[in-house]
Amino acid sequence: MNKNPFFIKNENIYLSDILKILGKKKQKNDLKINDISDLKLATKNDISFFNSPKYLDILKTSKAKYVISSDKYSSKINKYCEPIIVKNVLKSVYLITELFYPNSLDDAVDFSLESPDIKKFNKIKFGKNVLLGKNVKIGVNSIIGHNTIIESNVRIGSDCIIGNNTLLKNTIIGNSVRILDGSVIGKKGFGFFPNKDKNFRYPHIGMVLIKDNVEIGCNNTIDRGSLSNTVIGKNTFIDNQVHIAHNVNIGENCVITGQVGFAGSSKIGDNVLIGGQAGISGHLTIGNNVNIGGGSGVIKNLPDNSKVMGYPAKDIRSFLKENK
Amino acid sequence: MNKNPFFIKNENIYLSDILKILGKKKQKNDLKINDISDLKLATKNDISFFNSPKYLDILKTSKAKYVISSDKYSSKINKYCEPIIVKNVLKSVYLITELFYPNSLDDAVDFSLESPDIKKFNKIKFGKNVLLGKNVKIGVNSIIGHNTIIESNVRIGSDCIIGNNTLLKNTIIGNSVRILDGSVIGKKGFGFFPNKDKNFRYPHIGMVLIKDNVEIGCNNTIDRGSLSNTVIGKNTFIDNQVHIAHNVNIGENCVITGQVGFAGSSKIGDNVLIGGQAGISGHLTIGNNVNIGGGSGVIKNLPDNSKVMGYPAKDIRSFLKENK
Amino acid sequence: MNKNPFFIKNENIYLSDILKILGKKKQKNDLKINDISDLKLATKNDISFFNSPKYLDILKTSKAKYVISSDKYSSKINKYCEPIIVKNVLKSVYLITELFYPNSLDDAVDFSLESPDIKKFNKIKFGKNVLLGKNVKIGVNSIIGHNTIIESNVRIGSDCIIGNNTLLKNTIIGNSVRILDGSVIGKKGFGFFPNKDKNFRYPHIGMVLIKDNVEIGCNNTIDRGSLSNTVIGKNTFIDNQVHIAHNVNIGENCVITGQVGFAGSSKIGDNVLIGGQAGISGHLTIGNNVNIGGGSGVIKNLPDNSKVMGYPAKDIRSFLKENK
Repeated sequence: MNKNPFFIKNENIYLSDILKILGKKKQKNDLKINDISDLKLATKNDISFFNSPKYLDILKTSKAKYVISSDKYSSKINKYCEPIIVKNVLKSVYLITELFYPNSLDDAVDFSLESPDIKKFNKIKFGKNVLLGKNVKIGVNSIIGHNTIIESNVRIGSDCIIGNNTLLKNTIIGNSVRILDGSVIGKKGFGFFPNKDKNFRYPHIGMVLIKDNVEIGCNNTIDRGSLSNTVIGKNTFIDNQVHIAHNVNIGENCVITGQVGFAGSSKIGDNVLIGGQAGISGHLTIGNNVNIGGGSGVIKNLPDNSKVMGYPAKDIRSFLKENK
Repeated sequence: MNKNPFFIKNENIYLSDILKILGKKKQKNDLKINDISDLKLATKNDISFFNSPKYLDILKTSKAKYVISSDKYSSKINKYCEPIIVKNVLKSVYLITELFYPNSLDDAVDFSLESPDIKKFNKIKFGKNVLLGKNVKIGVNSIIGHNTIIESNVRIGSDCIIGNNTLLKNTIIGNSVRILDGSVIGKKGFGFFPNKDKNFRYPHIGMVLIKDNVEIGCNNTIDRGSLSNTVIGKNTFIDNQVHIAHNVNIGENCVITGQVGFAGSSKIGDNVLIGGQAGISGHLTIGNNVNIGGGSGVIKNLPDNSKVMGYPAKDIRSFLKENK
Repeated sequence: MNKNPFFIKNENIYLSDILKILGKKKQKNDLKINDISDLKLATKNDISFFNSPKYLDILKTSKAKYVISSDKYSSKINKYCEPIIVKNVLKSVYLITELFYPNSLDDAVDFSLESPDIKKFNKIKFGKNVLLGKNVKIGVNSIIGHNTIIESNVRIGSDCIIGNNTLLKNTIIGNSVRILDGSVIGKKGFGFFPNKDKNFRYPHIGMVLIKDNVEIGCNNTIDRGSLSNTVIGKNTFIDNQVHIAHNVNIGENCVITGQVGFAGSSKIGDNVLIGGQAGISGHLTIGNNVNIGGGSGVIKNLPDNSKVMGYPAKDIRSFLKENK
C-alpha cells in the first residue's frame, strides 16, 4: 500500500471535532479519530460512511469505528459499527474530509513548478520546457518528453517513457510505464454536491496508481480517487481518448481501446478486453477475462468470462443473433 | 448582452452592397443595413435568413427587416419580413457575413501573443510560459495555469482558475469559473459548405459565453457560434472530453458527464443531467429538469422533466423494461 | 507514392536471415529480400503475411514473393506465392520488421527538437515556443502555431495552417491543409502482442499521409500505420475529438463529425458523411457516398450509397421506422 504523499493529514482530530462540525451533540467519551476512509480500506479508529445498500457486504467486514449514514440505514449499521446519523451523508463526508485534509480542496495550479535541476536527475533525459514541482522522484533511465508538467510529489519509476504535453499530478507510477502525449492524469474527479447557483466540491484525496509495464495512449484523462485511489493494474494497455473517472480500479493485463469511458468507482478484473467507444457505468464489478464489444454500454455487473455486446450490453451471441 | 469584441463590423453596408454581392438587381430605395444576425437576435434594419420550417415560430416574431431564403419559403416570409430569394441560402449568408466582418474568415494563429506584463495584472497569478494576446482582461484574484494561451480580447472575470495547457479564444468568462487542463475553447465551429475538392468555410462571428460558477474539465472542445453565441449557463458543471459544437446553448445548473457530445445549435434547459457518452443531435430543444441516461442518443426534442435513455432515447422506464 | 523518410531500412536482408530469425531451416537457394509489406503494396521480392481469409482476394493478385502464414492457409497461399509457415504469424511479422527496420521500435521522445532556425524558413510564420526536429520541410506561406512540436523528417506543404499545442510525427502533409489545436498525429498505433505481465509492441513503420485541402479539428488522435499508411484523402474535413487508428484509409471529400472513432485498418470511400460519435469497426470496407448516422456502430462492410444508422448500423429507414 502506497502512503499518500499529496495530501497532508491533520493528525489531531477528535470525535468531538467531528460531531461539532456536523452540528451534533458531544458524546460522553471523546476519542482521537485516525482518518476518514471508505468502508473497505478503513482501519480501527477510522470514520467511514454508508450511503447505499449495495455496500452492505463490505459494511459487514469493515473495521471502521464510526459510520456516517442516514436514518434509514441506522439499524443495519448498528450491528457492525457505530452509526452517526446525519441528514446529508455526502455533505457530512465533505466536511469531515476537509477537517482532516484542510488543503485538499485547493486543486489549482502548482506554482512551485521549475525547470528540472539536471544535477539532481543525472540518469534521466528531459525534453525542452519540462516543468517539475517539488519532491518529484524519477527512477533511472526514464525519459520525460517536451512541454510535460509533473507536479509536486509525483513519483515515477525507472525505465519509464513519459511523452510530450502530458500533465501528471497526484500520481505514483511504477517501472517501465509508457505514457504517450497529451494526457491529463491525476486531476480531481467529477464529484460534487449539486447546489443551486453554486455547487460545492468535495475533496479528492485519493491518488492515481499506475503499475509496472502499463501503457497509456494520447489525450486520455484519468482522474484521481476521492477517498480511495484510481488504479491501473500491471501490464494493462490503454489506447487514445479514454476517460477513466475517479476511484476506478482496473486489473492486470487488460486491453482498453480508443474512446472507452469509465464512470466512477467501478472495479474491472484482470485480462479484460474492451472494444472502442464502450462505456462502463459507475459502481459496477466486472469479472476477470471479460470481453466487452465495441460500442457497448455496460450497466450491470458482469461475472468472470462474460462476452458481451450491445446497449445495454448482453451476451454477445444473443446480440449478434438478434441483429443479424 | 455582451457586445462582441472579437470581430470588427464594417458599419457601412447598404442593401445595394448586399444585392450586388448576391448577383441580384438593385432595388429602388437603398438603405443602410445594421448587421447580419439570426432571426431571434435580429433587430430593426438587420438582415437574417430562413432555411427550415422548424424556425417558423421564430420568424413570426423576428424583427429582421430582410430575410435571405429560397423560393419555396417566399410566401411564408412575406407576411413578416421582406424576403430576398436566392438559390443557395447558406452560401449567400456566408457572402454577406464576409461583407460585414471582413476578417472573420481568418481563424488562424494569434501572432500578437506575448508573456503577460505582470505590472498590468497585479492581482493575477500566472504560471510559466503563459501567452496572452492584446486587450485581454482578467478580473482580480484569478489564476492562469502553465503553458496556457489566452488570445486577444478574451475576458475573464474575477476569482477564476484557468488550468494548464488550455487555449482560450473568442470567449467571455464570468466570475468564479474553473477551467481545468487541456481544453480548447472558442475555435470556429465545424460549419462549412461542402464543395468538391475544396470546401469553403463560412465565417463564425459568434463567441463562447461562460457564465458565473461554471466548471469545465479536461481536454474538452467548445466551439464558438457562427452567427449567435455558444453559451454555458451559470453553475453548469462539465466533465472531461466533452464536445460542444457551435451555437449550443446550455442552461443553468446542468451536469454534463464525461465524453458527452452536442451537435450544433441545440438548446438545453436548466437543471439537465446528462450521463457519460450520451450524444445530443443538432437543432434540438431539451427542456428543463431533463435527465438523459449514459450512452443515450437523443434525436428528438424533449419536454421538461423527461427522463430518457437509449438510442434513440426514449422514456427510461420503457428502455429498462424492454431490456431487462 | 511517398517514400518513407522516417524509418531507415536495412537494405541487406536475405531470405536466410529471415528463416534464421524465425527458427526455420535454410533453403537451398538464398535471395535478397527487398522489404516487408502488406499483400496489396508488396512488390516483387518482398515478403508479406496472410492471417485471415478476408484478404484472399488481395492474396490472389499480390506480387509478394514470400508470405508468412499459419499451417491452415498453406494450400491457399501455395497457388499464388511461396508460403513460410510459422506458429505465430504476428510475432513473426514483428521479428522480420525489426530486422528490416532496427530503429522502428524506438517510438520515444525526439531529442533533436530545437527552436526553428528562422533563416532556413524565410516565408514561414512561427508562433512562440515551436520545436522542430531535423530535416523538417515546410512549404511557403505556411503558419505554425504556438507550442507546436514537429518531429524530425515531417513534411508540410505550402499554405498550411498548423494550430497551437499540436504534435506532428511521422506525417506527410499536402498543401492548404489546416490542422487546428491540440491534436496528436503520427504516433504509433495501438497494436501489440498481448503477453502476460509484459506485452510486446510490434513496430509501426507506416506514416500518416494528409492530402491537400484537408481540415483536422482539435484534440484529435490519428495514429500512423503499422506496415501500410494511415491516409486522409483530399478535402476531407474532420471535426474535434475524432480518433483514427492505424492503417485507416479515408477517401476524398468526406465529412467526419465530432467524437467519431475508427478502429484499425478500415477503408472508407469518397464523399462519406459520418455523424457524431459513430464508431467504425476494424478491417471494414465502406463504399463511396455512404451516409452513417450519428451514434451508429458500423460492424459490417457497407456498399456504395448506403444510408445507415443504429448499433449495429442498418438501413436508416428501417432504423427510424422500428424506433418511431
